Amino acid sequence: MAKYLYTFGGNAAEGRADMKNLLGGKGANLAEMCQLGIPVPAGFTITTEVCTYYYDHDRTYPESLAGEIDRALEQMAGVMGATFGDAADPLLLSVRSGARKSMPGMMETVLNVGLCSATIPGMIARTGGNERFVYDAYRRLIMMYADVVMEKAAGVEVAEGEGIRHQLEELMEGVKKQRGCQGDTDLTGADLKALCEAFKARIHQVLGKPFPDAPRQQLDGAVGAVFGSWNGKRAISYRRIEGIPDEWGTAVNVQAMVFGNLGETSATGVAFTRNPATGENVFYGEWLPNAQGEDVVAGIRTPDAINAASKTETNAHLPTLEEAMPAAYRQLLEIRGRLETHYRDMQDVEFTVQDGRLWMLQTRDGKRNGPAAVRMAVEMADEGLIAKAEAVLRVRPDQLDELLHPMVDPASEGRARLLTKGLPAGPGGARGTIVLTSDKAQELGGAGASVILLRTETSPEDVHGMHAAQAIVTAKGGMTSHAALVARGWGKTCVVGCGSLDIDVAAGTVTVGDTVLREGDVVTVNGTRGAVYVGELPLIVIDPAKNQVMSRFLGWCDELRTLGVRTNADRPEDAEQARRFGAEGIGLCRTEHMFFGEERIRAVREMILAESVEERVVAVDKLLPFQRADFRGLFQAMAGLPVTVRLLDPPLHEFVPHEDALLVDLAQTMGVDVDQVRARVEQLKEANPMLGHRGCRLGISYPEVTAMQARAILEAAAELRAEGVDARPEIMVPLVGTVGELADQKAVILEVAAAVMAEKGIAELPFLIGTMIEVPRAALTADQVAAEAEFFSFGTNDLTQMTCGFSRDDAGTFLPLYVKKGFYAADPFQSIDQAGVGQLVTMGTQKGRSARPGLKVGVCGEHGGDPDSIHFFHGAGLDYVSCSPFRVPIARLAAAQAAIKG
Amino acid sequence: MAKYLYTFGGNAAEGRADMKNLLGGKGANLAEMCQLGIPVPAGFTITTEVCTYYYDHDRTYPESLAGEIDRALEQMAGVMGATFGDAADPLLLSVRSGARKSMPGMMETVLNVGLCSATIPGMIARTGGNERFVYDAYRRLIMMYADVVMEKAAGVEVAEGEGIRHQLEELMEGVKKQRGCQGDTDLTGADLKALCEAFKARIHQVLGKPFPDAPRQQLDGAVGAVFGSWNGKRAISYRRIEGIPDEWGTAVNVQAMVFGNLGETSATGVAFTRNPATGENVFYGEWLPNAQGEDVVAGIRTPDAINAASKTETNAHLPTLEEAMPAAYRQLLEIRGRLETHYRDMQDVEFTVQDGRLWMLQTRDGKRNGPAAVRMAVEMADEGLIAKAEAVLRVRPDQLDELLHPMVDPASEGRARLLTKGLPAGPGGARGTIVLTSDKAQELGGAGASVILLRTETSPEDVHGMHAAQAIVTAKGGMTSHAALVARGWGKTCVVGCGSLDIDVAAGTVTVGDTVLREGDVVTVNGTRGAVYVGELPLIVIDPAKNQVMSRFLGWCDELRTLGVRTNADRPEDAEQARRFGAEGIGLCRTEHMFFGEERIRAVREMILAESVEERVVAVDKLLPFQRADFRGLFQAMAGLPVTVRLLDPPLHEFVPHEDALLVDLAQTMGVDVDQVRARVEQLKEANPMLGHRGCRLGISYPEVTAMQARAILEAAAELRAEGVDARPEIMVPLVGTVGELADQKAVILEVAAAVMAEKGIAELPFLIGTMIEVPRAALTADQVAAEAEFFSFGTNDLTQMTCGFSRDDAGTFLPLYVKKGFYAADPFQSIDQAGVGQLVTMGTQKGRSARPGLKVGVCGEHGGDPDSIHFFHGAGLDYVSCSPFRVPIARLAAAQAAIKG
Repeated sequence: MAKYLYTFGGNAAEGRADMKNLLGGKGANLAEMCQLGIPVPAGFTITTEVCTYYYDHDRTYPESLAGEIDRALEQMAGVMGATFGDAADPLLLSVRSGARKSMPGMMETVLNVGLCSATIPGMIARTGGNERFVYDAYRRLIMMYADVVMEKAAGVEVAEGEGIRHQLEELMEGVKKQRGCQGDTDLTGADLKALCEAFKARIHQVLGKPFPDAPRQQLDGAVGAVFGSWNGKRAISYRRIEGIPDEWGTAVNVQAMVFGNLGETSATGVAFTRNPATGENVFYGEWLPNAQGEDVVAGIRTPDAINAASKTETNAHLPTLEEAMPAAYRQLLEIRGRLETHYRDMQDVEFTVQDGRLWMLQTRDGKRNGPAAVRMAVEMADEGLIAKAEAVLRVRPDQLDELLHPMVDPASEGRARLLTKGLPAGPGGARGTIVLTSDKAQELGGAGASVILLRTETSPEDVHGMHAAQAIVTAKGGMTSHAALVARGWGKTCVVGCGSLDIDVAAGTVTVGDTVLREGDVVTVNGTRGAVYVGELPLIVIDPAKNQVMSRFLGWCDELRTLGVRTNADRPEDAEQARRFGAEGIGLCRTEHMFFGEERIRAVREMILAESVEERVVAVDKLLPFQRADFRGLFQAMAGLPVTVRLLDPPLHEFVPHEDALLVDLAQTMGVDVDQVRARVEQLKEANPMLGHRGCRLGISYPEVTAMQARAILEAAAELRAEGVDARPEIMVPLVGTVGELADQKAVILEVAAAVMAEKGIAELPFLIGTMIEVPRAALTADQVAAEAEFFSFGTNDLTQMTCGFSRDDAGTFLPLYVKKGFYAADPFQSIDQAGVGQLVTMGTQKGRSARPGLKVGVCGEHGGDPDSIHFFHGAGLDYVSCSPFRVPIARLAAAQAAIKG
Repeated sequence: MAKYLYTFGGNAAEGRADMKNLLGGKGANLAEMCQLGIPVPAGFTITTEVCTYYYDHDRTYPESLAGEIDRALEQMAGVMGATFGDAADPLLLSVRSGARKSMPGMMETVLNVGLCSATIPGMIARTGGNERFVYDAYRRLIMMYADVVMEKAAGVEVAEGEGIRHQLEELMEGVKKQRGCQGDTDLTGADLKALCEAFKARIHQVLGKPFPDAPRQQLDGAVGAVFGSWNGKRAISYRRIEGIPDEWGTAVNVQAMVFGNLGETSATGVAFTRNPATGENVFYGEWLPNAQGEDVVAGIRTPDAINAASKTETNAHLPTLEEAMPAAYRQLLEIRGRLETHYRDMQDVEFTVQDGRLWMLQTRDGKRNGPAAVRMAVEMADEGLIAKAEAVLRVRPDQLDELLHPMVDPASEGRARLLTKGLPAGPGGARGTIVLTSDKAQELGGAGASVILLRTETSPEDVHGMHAAQAIVTAKGGMTSHAALVARGWGKTCVVGCGSLDIDVAAGTVTVGDTVLREGDVVTVNGTRGAVYVGELPLIVIDPAKNQVMSRFLGWCDELRTLGVRTNADRPEDAEQARRFGAEGIGLCRTEHMFFGEERIRAVREMILAESVEERVVAVDKLLPFQRADFRGLFQAMAGLPVTVRLLDPPLHEFVPHEDALLVDLAQTMGVDVDQVRARVEQLKEANPMLGHRGCRLGISYPEVTAMQARAILEAAAELRAEGVDARPEIMVPLVGTVGELADQKAVILEVAAAVMAEKGIAELPFLIGTMIEVPRAALTADQVAAEAEFFSFGTNDLTQMTCGFSRDDAGTFLPLYVKKGFYAADPFQSIDQAGVGQLVTMGTQKGRSARPGLKVGVCGEHGGDPDSIHFFHGAGLDYVSCSPFRVPIARLAAAQAAIKG
């Protein structure tokens, strides 16, 4: 016969900690604590299978369950020395939910079950005649039960704010007013007794049923209400957000009530086995004398510190548990040690002292912030509590992010005035004065001011202002918009797609609804949450470079991972930053970012507007010294490490001015007719620029551009090598769809290489020629492409666009709906679409290596910094990922975790 | 020891017809004729392997070759009764190329080899003292040899028009002038003899070498020159165009000269074993008395007909060969029968009569036009000469095209005045007066005039004018531009991308260079060749429906093919046309083409501009009756056959007006603010509309549109079935990338279906729901998609765009270069890219059927009408292709050929 219920209590239990799927997290840990000999009020857990049965069988239970409950209640009586429903020595019960994963506050709880006319006198006797205590417990039971069981679980429909609970609260307020009471505690036992009668009468009147006076009926009702609350609106929407499957179900924990509010020898508290905010290995917690658990959580009374180490400014003057109840504290401290040794992780525990006796009500792995997570992981490994691999698994990649950026102090955000919300495109916090143009940002930022650049959207022409700003906020664009890409590359705080933002550059105003801010006003940006606040909020800063613990932690990651981590960087500063963060080379240098300098853009435009090869060669030659200097800087910053340089990629239209005044100006300085310039600019417009004349298609049409870039790269490398610097360029041809394109460009590059070597009189100049795999056809024919490629780098941004058939610029109109409807598990531009795009990555890698064994394969899209994607790439057998500098530590961690999980 | 040379002559030969790879086409057939006992001047063929050897070994020959030539020359002497180099009875030789595939005029020839001071007297004696004949032959040898062997093959560089041949011709002109001669024939033997001496002196002086006087030296030089010409500029570029591999090489045929110009008992001619223009089973040819072969080809003299059946207007008065040389004609007629029986195909032969004796110089499969190809194939099968399958293989798909459209008379094109050239987007010929606007085209065309619509480019707003025009010509756009797609759909003549065309609608003029035409001027369009002519040229028309031979031929195709053929059609007329052409259903009905009618477009725009679901439903409901009527018509035209209807696909921006005046008008009639309309139109603009909010993404955002279309389809089907018409709708969801999208839209359609059936009170309404596979991801995850799809239809146009990563609208800037450079074997929008896109078609089909065995899979892109693509689809196991109505017969033929070839 199936077993539907597991008992625990009295240093024994039928369950264990590893039975979370069946017993829920809470039930499994209660059982485990009993097995460990830790004092836990006796009780039993009704399994999650019953929840499934309940929903599969029209909200009924397995036949055998009632008998199992009977037997369990008998067993509890033996352990606790009191009996549920017994008039003389009654046992009261709590009935709580407990799912596999914690869903705090999402399901129902009923306390004090078992109080009724028959047991109240016995209870009063048990509590030494404390009538007030008992009737207060009774009125709480009635309120909770009427609300949760008799109204909600029964499916009674009520208008908002008119439910039974509200009515009962009004009744109570009336009595308090009548008695001139300040708080609940001013009501006497007699007041409460009368109130209970009034409650029951109102319930009968409103809900048409009497409040049950039989303990067992109360218990059955409460159990049903907890199971019922699994499919309550709140629980369902929480599961959707957290990705918890509906079929998991919840368990129900029925447990003997213990009371921390029976007088000065009673108390209740919450503790962490280590400090969850810093990770320090000290016992840390709060307690309240003569109180129940909910009082600690409710925050009405300021809790005291359990010990000296836990004291804060607000409670330093209050007695600690250690001082007030030394015996209970010593026992708690001993349990703390036992729990950590047993669970091998920081525990978050709830306890109650009833008449001087300590009871543990819950233990679970404690939540912690990023710095604490890293410190605990490292120290626990040092203590020998866990292995290094285990330590690495203990830190979530997003927790590392907290160590890399200043953060807006979360405590301050609740009170702050929200200006607008958008997408969290660049993590961290920043504050400064508003500027609305990039020139202004450069001007003020260059002079040392902290500025926040607000734009409707950004283009390559904004780059100087973006660089000068502390943070960037845009009204339009998604997670892979220009602003987002650039900001992430620089580790800059950025919020994009703030739809409510109305920016009037001419007027110098930013309007959101009724709020109007002006240039010069101060805002604070939380790029981790995607929020912008009016005014200045405090920031928390941790310097990662000086963080020894983090360095050691990331060192362990490096020992464990097999996937390399490079960075996407176009400037020496970024490369140096990334190298400090542990980057093992550059996986993507976008050369076109180098084209926007003031002196260069003119030559770039001349190159684009050239009418003949000869004219183009003249313009291109002007760019050569700039590019050579750019590459020198990068190779130097990454000396000894590979630097993958992508040849010119974007459509030429992106480089030409769009305003007529600029066109006229350009024509004048170029000495050509403005109509000619206009005509050429017009000609460059494309119906679908994403699928147009770009990538290697440019180099094939204009081989002189490829030749110039190859020359700049190879001359820079040759010069540096002559100076003893180990430059290791890898030249990457973008947007290849056929092997022929790569072969064509490779021939141009090799010809230049031979010329450079001859000119410099050198016999050897190590470099590689490879290609980006970003066109689906390239992945499909990777065996052919690999015949010419010395390395592959998956450009998963474009590969996603073409494989899924949507442009990231345009997908905003439907992609959020697609994610919501579950067509994609996540935004495929943030986390790789494994079934579709991922299939091409796997296929391309396998086919490529089938033609060229040992082919070096990497990823240089935004996905290279996404932990889930990194797991996938590890599984696909890639050699490295490349991501923006500030994602490098995260990628190192994710790669290590992927390796550990195999 | 390797054999490098194959002799033939005297009813014997070492080679055979099936040795074309080794002996070339000409050599193999000469050998075969000898084997058949047909009189052929003796000779030998030096194999293609020698050509390969020659280029692999620095232009030298295998050691044994010279000895083989010696022996072959001895053998020839035995057969021909004259000896090469013999003073008394000299044999002269022709030295000609002969590749595996004919490369007419691309390589060199040297005739009369062997004439020298030693043999000239003997030759004069052999020709009965014909000194003039001999010195004329000698001067021809010298001119040819100096040019081909001593200058070209020796790699002497000369400026254009200053080569040795030119100098010798000037010398000859000088003599003619001096003698007061009209033509070459007026020069006497003495004149020619003196000229030969002058030639040789000039050669020695200019080229620094004497003209060789040793026959064997002449022969070796000529053989080397022929091999050398395999890598001449002309030959190389011809091979590039025809796709002939360089490594094939050419053979060299050395053969005894025979002379048709030895007097009135000599003659020469060319004949076809059947009429190549009509296919009629009559012997057909031309001849000239007292002439050499080149005289027939040169066209200086009008050739006579060989028999009564071959007479034309111009030569009806001249004696036929049958009349003039009855014995030779009888022998030729007998050979004609023997060749056809032997080769089982129409032969193109060259013959010479020397002194009354018939010699066959060449036989090969004769070229023929489309109508002739079909007639010959059918008649030869009827005659039992070939099997039906062989007959089907005898007609190239593009030859069928000639039977489906009026053609510009090719004879007239040479003389015509070309206006412009472009891409041959819609085959056939048409002529009419120029119109520059679609409204004008409709006005005049509707009144019965033949008009040619010339536009810079076309949009859906031009459709009425395009329909009214005889042909469409555009200045911009490629083979899959709007104009091209629409024209092909209607089988309309169309030339696109005529870059030189400058159209000024306001002035009513069309300018190309100096030519200015006005509206009303007449032009003729050859859509098969992509040419537009000034003025009216004659057209040739064959009515395919009345062509019994073609009907029988296509019937045989249907017996043999396994691939189904459907049509792409949006209008009942097109569907009917396609059905007459043999379409077995509609594979693609683009519903958006139905949205452009005058009454409809307003409702469509209201739908697009709706601000709420309610407003949208109102607009959508207005469209329902139109759509229902559209589908009724189509289902009726295709009664009993499946009709695949694609739900709304294009981005909404395509439906809104782009000119401000129209926006204002629209706002007024809709009763909304024009700024609101402008804003919404602006909002609809996309960076990459191809990858934007379109396809099922529209139906998912606006399910009411899907519901309306599903209702229109199903109501139309239900009504028709009630009337006894067998309507078979297949509803196709476009642009699916994930199975979730299809499931979403399927749910909407099924809900409508249930409602329609309930409303109509019917229990059964057969229809299918399937999807287009056009996003790469859909092909990659076809196993998942097939779980929801009852059929797949590959949309290879979009699939090509996304897989190869280029938009057809923008690819014009680089795709021609890509094809030229060989990155793609052909334009991937015209013939499917088998390695890339084709891989996804194969994968999608296999994965789809793995999840749903027997899944119906078709293709509805433009590739469905391309023979090479059809071969591929047959091999990939597809069930059907769908193409424009006028491609249906071609697809039936291509499908049959694919089935035959396996």
